[in-house]
Amino acid sequence: MTSSTSPAKFQGIAVLDHKDWKNPKKVEFEPKPFYPNDIDIKIECCGVCGSDIHAAAGHWGDLEKPLVVGHEVIGTVVRLGENCNSGLKLGDRVGVGAQVFSCLDCERCKSNNEPYCPSFVTTYGQSYKDGYSSKGGYADYIRVHEHFAVPIPENIPSHLAAPLMCGGITVFSPLLRNGCGPGKKVGIVGIGGIGHMGLIFAKAMGAEVYAISRTSAKKEDAMKLGADHFIATKEEPDWGTKYFDTFDLIVVCANSLTDVDFNVVPKAMKVGGNIVSICVPEQNEVLNLKPFGLLGVSISNSALGGVKEIKELLDLVSKNNLKIWVETLPIGEEGVKQAFERMDKGDVKYRFTLTDYDKEFSK
Amino acid sequence: MTSSTSPAKFQGIAVLDHKDWKNPKKVEFEPKPFYPNDIDIKIECCGVCGSDIHAAAGHWGDLEKPLVVGHEVIGTVVRLGENCNSGLKLGDRVGVGAQVFSCLDCERCKSNNEPYCPSFVTTYGQSYKDGYSSKGGYADYIRVHEHFAVPIPENIPSHLAAPLMCGGITVFSPLLRNGCGPGKKVGIVGIGGIGHMGLIFAKAMGAEVYAISRTSAKKEDAMKLGADHFIATKEEPDWGTKYFDTFDLIVVCANSLTDVDFNVVPKAMKVGGNIVSICVPEQNEVLNLKPFGLLGVSISNSALGGVKEIKELLDLVSKNNLKIWVETLPIGEEGVKQAFERMDKGDVKYRFTLTDYDKEFSK
Repeated sequence: MTSSTSPAKFQGIAVLDHKDWKNPKKVEFEPKPFYPNDIDIKIECCGVCGSDIHAAAGHWGDLEKPLVVGHEVIGTVVRLGENCNSGLKLGDRVGVGAQVFSCLDCERCKSNNEPYCPSFVTTYGQSYKDGYSSKGGYADYIRVHEHFAVPIPENIPSHLAAPLMCGGITVFSPLLRNGCGPGKKVGIVGIGGIGHMGLIFAKAMGAEVYAISRTSAKKEDAMKLGADHFIATKEEPDWGTKYFDTFDLIVVCANSLTDVDFNVVPKAMKVGGNIVSICVPEQNEVLNLKPFGLLGVSISNSALGGVKEIKELLDLVSKNNLKIWVETLPIGEEGVKQAFERMDKGDVKYRFTLTDYDKEFSK
Repeated sequence: MTSSTSPAKFQGIAVLDHKDWKNPKKVEFEPKPFYPNDIDIKIECCGVCGSDIHAAAGHWGDLEKPLVVGHEVIGTVVRLGENCNSGLKLGDRVGVGAQVFSCLDCERCKSNNEPYCPSFVTTYGQSYKDGYSSKGGYADYIRVHEHFAVPIPENIPSHLAAPLMCGGITVFSPLLRNGCGPGKKVGIVGIGGIGHMGLIFAKAMGAEVYAISRTSAKKEDAMKLGADHFIATKEEPDWGTKYFDTFDLIVVCANSLTDVDFNVVPKAMKVGGNIVSICVPEQNEVLNLKPFGLLGVSISNSALGGVKEIKELLDLVSKNNLKIWVETLPIGEEGVKQAFERMDKGDVKYRFTLTDYDKEFSK
């Protein structure tokens, strides 16, 4: 346990200009005001999420600079606000995901649906009520409301815990909420950073798992990750008909709505089956559905998961000793640049975690 | 009980030309071949469904003539095939809805999802495997597989039973499948022939019921029908925001996808809420959804209900002595013409049943 406290200013690797997003710079920045339920976390590592690239590149608009991204944060509690009462102690290893604030008082918050609270503040690039623009985990410290810091079970290494905090929970939540389990046939569309975790979790939850990808390129990986079956949609364009009445649940983990033909997917669903997309597409994309496309089948869009679900995910991973596939890169201008460039090209199997924070940020 | 049998040829009021659909003609036609599980029903009355108008007018393509529409059929069993074993007896009063065939052998049929069986044959204008084009209830008799004839409880008058067979089950099925009941807030969008039944059923099932219509014109009716609340969407364009986080379920009974802004409806839904459309739109309509529109909310399209659900609906109506609002018109060239014209104008409160079959078809 450490009893060190946090510095007056934090340091991070930040995007200073969306046009030059692939050349992030080390900066010092003012942390947000410290409120009585806040904690400070000394960061040990942080996952690299597709959202980081979208935000850095300006796909989601012009965000306040310096823009410190990163919302798969693992670190150690080094300061507790006077009203903290969630049970966290100094020295606890905790994770922070893509959400750092909600009202905690509305029906949604009270029913473990914090990500659907209208007062939602995302971990970076969004203003809190006091006007401070949130800053994420490519930094030495992060300051957040204690509710959004979740203890990490001892047997999960930090670099494997980090990607669970956003990518992991994003695919776990729709699996959990739509009955993934024994006797169910579950498809994961898009075998990338999030999809690869979907295969691992769905298998661990007891389902019969289908990996659904455009080509066979990832077939071997998918089978190692836990898939029982593999469908290459470009090689079997009529796969919806071939797999008629097969799926209880399909979770679409593609980056873009245009990557998936939502008029084919429903054909493969059982009556009452659910198609859940976790895609956060560019703002101008629209989903076009033919009128009879969803006969007996539902489609929805899922956002993260609540803190309770994050705990359930960590429990699943811990108890089953699940290992997601992670490559580490050292934090720093060079490491972040490399992460951005390789993510942008899709050159990752299947997730990056930025590490070596102590080296970069030691005084 | 009658032991009369059926004639060699049936008579009906038929559309002979889509261009002249509002002038149907009385015709004699060959019934379909009689198979060992078939029954003949002497028709007493038949509801007029929006589908009849779509089919008659040619909105669903050029259908084989003579086109005898009508799929809300009530009548008496007058002939039983040698293999019939569903328990029906000569003289039983039964109803036939919009489906007259399915394989009865696939997973869907076995799980009471006959309307989702790929071998589905609709009651009129679709070819059976033997090539015969099905013919509906604007006729003196109908010949169908016994499975699709459902006994009508004694206390439901025939003219009020008829509209339950298609319009009724179409709105009841999504209510039943999506948990309409005590403690749930349920919205019915579109207060017409089907929507008015939706209000009655949802109330009887114990939900808190919201009628959602474009203007206040139908408010008084809606409250009489069982609505607890009324929303006029044109008068409160921002109703989705006003009713934020309200609905567990919304069933959309509008005729056209373009009548409803599917980017507004989700705002009023609870997390995990379901929007179910029963709309059977014209073929060229496409549903356009903005990418973040369905966050936490599902949308689906529902088709009829299985025979088991029809029985449950009849049970609900019988036990609660529910009265749908029906205007009767006498069958015949003139009566059908009037029904078509008034349906086309929306001049109906809220459903027509064609009656007086004995007068029109007596020898």
